[in-house]
Amino acid sequence: MAFSTSDIAHLTALACQAADAAAVETLRHFRGADLSADNKRTSGFDPVTVADRAAEAAIRAVVEDARPNDAILGEEEAGKAGTSGVQWVIDPIDGTRGYISGTPTWGTLIAVSDDDGPQIGLVDQPYIGERFIGTPDGAVMVRHGAEIPLAVSPTRALEDAILFSTFPEVGSQGERTGFEAVAQRCKLVRFGMDCYAHALLAAGHVDLVIEAGLAPYDVGAPIALVKAAGGIATNWAGDDAHHGGQLILAATPDLHRAALDILRPFAHG
Amino acid sequence: MAFSTSDIAHLTALACQAADAAAVETLRHFRGADLSADNKRTSGFDPVTVADRAAEAAIRAVVEDARPNDAILGEEEAGKAGTSGVQWVIDPIDGTRGYISGTPTWGTLIAVSDDDGPQIGLVDQPYIGERFIGTPDGAVMVRHGAEIPLAVSPTRALEDAILFSTFPEVGSQGERTGFEAVAQRCKLVRFGMDCYAHALLAAGHVDLVIEAGLAPYDVGAPIALVKAAGGIATNWAGDDAHHGGQLILAATPDLHRAALDILRPFAHG
Repeated sequence: MAFSTSDIAHLTALACQAADAAAVETLRHFRGADLSADNKRTSGFDPVTVADRAAEAAIRAVVEDARPNDAILGEEEAGKAGTSGVQWVIDPIDGTRGYISGTPTWGTLIAVSDDDGPQIGLVDQPYIGERFIGTPDGAVMVRHGAEIPLAVSPTRALEDAILFSTFPEVGSQGERTGFEAVAQRCKLVRFGMDCYAHALLAAGHVDLVIEAGLAPYDVGAPIALVKAAGGIATNWAGDDAHHGGQLILAATPDLHRAALDILRPFAHG
Repeated sequence: MAFSTSDIAHLTALACQAADAAAVETLRHFRGADLSADNKRTSGFDPVTVADRAAEAAIRAVVEDARPNDAILGEEEAGKAGTSGVQWVIDPIDGTRGYISGTPTWGTLIAVSDDDGPQIGLVDQPYIGERFIGTPDGAVMVRHGAEIPLAVSPTRALEDAILFSTFPEVGSQGERTGFEAVAQRCKLVRFGMDCYAHALLAAGHVDLVIEAGLAPYDVGAPIALVKAAGGIATNWAGDDAHHGGQLILAATPDLHRAALDILRPFAHG
């Protein structure tokens, strides 16, 4: 199925309503003295905060109330099956490490998918007050009530590219080798922005994003957003990336091909 | 000389006025299509933008008009000698790499020093709308017209610490070895926030910052801000850090000592 124009308007408005509900919870705890973190994994540091769980519950409540037959895949709670053919893919706080550090570059990710993957994607940064929205009709950033159209950069060569990644913190040794082979050819490499870097790619400021070890809820919204802004999104094998794992986001087909040529030997899955 | 209470009020107000003038220039070009970058150094990538130069000129104009006898040390123009015993230390855009990438974690740094080093420090992030101010009277963040008092965290052990750095991009191999020896003991390590991480340390969200290869104009404002919020600032030898080079910012004396013990063998200068 493909979403109709009225589907897109309705689903996008609902996604914005859900993001508003999530923001109440994320902002209630951001930089708060009460912020506690515990470990989801026995190795490494992956904090889950009260805010994370409350924000996902808020998003689910909005979606389930309006569309009880949609499927929901989230980070914090068990997945919910649906009958409508529409799936919501949500990460209440992408970048929890940044969130607990006080950096305002975490985001709430909300995607709406059909059988072909994510079609609508929101990356919401409520502390700064920026909402990046991608749909089949295009991409915009909403800030201070104004809509600013988004489009990827025209950058075609690695040598001219600004590359962002959550690396060096994420990925296997092999993935890191592949990443570094791309990175050493780029004009500039920066780390630590999580989903915010994906939004900046849609906005034309960043040219290339390379990630690994992602979950499906990490990638749905960024993929829809970047594609809506004219960019390319695949995994390191050049296939659909919305199941998670390895990710390439690129501003142009040439830039995507240049990165893919280097990363393909390190592709898995 | 030490600043009197009325000196502090006057100089802080003037620093805020200068930051306002700089913000007009930095925001005029931030995320603009006209943003051009050229290389200051033959090796590496250190963009200088039109905004950088215009913002420094704006700060200097405010300071020179009000206090013609003060010395000025900035990033973009030649230093100016003074006769008053007061020196302004300014970096119009700290984090130019982040600035040209569209990330809102660059800052305008303005410090006011006496013979003992920086006493007043501003870290201004005008896109987000946050101004971090440290003086001998304390530290605050101003946002949406409200003043929020700042204080460093009580974190005493590396194992409980959130560490930020511009590393892995900056520093010699030896410095990197020292940094990594500290990093592997910390709870969480994040990169790429430039001066914004220093402000988050003053605000109690980040516990430790380790940097190297800094210029005097990079460190003046952060040092004054972090000290005003109750933190410690030295170089890797445990001495005054305001001449630039290697920097440790720590929330508590215990945490500072733990980092210093590891970094001291890598100290130079």
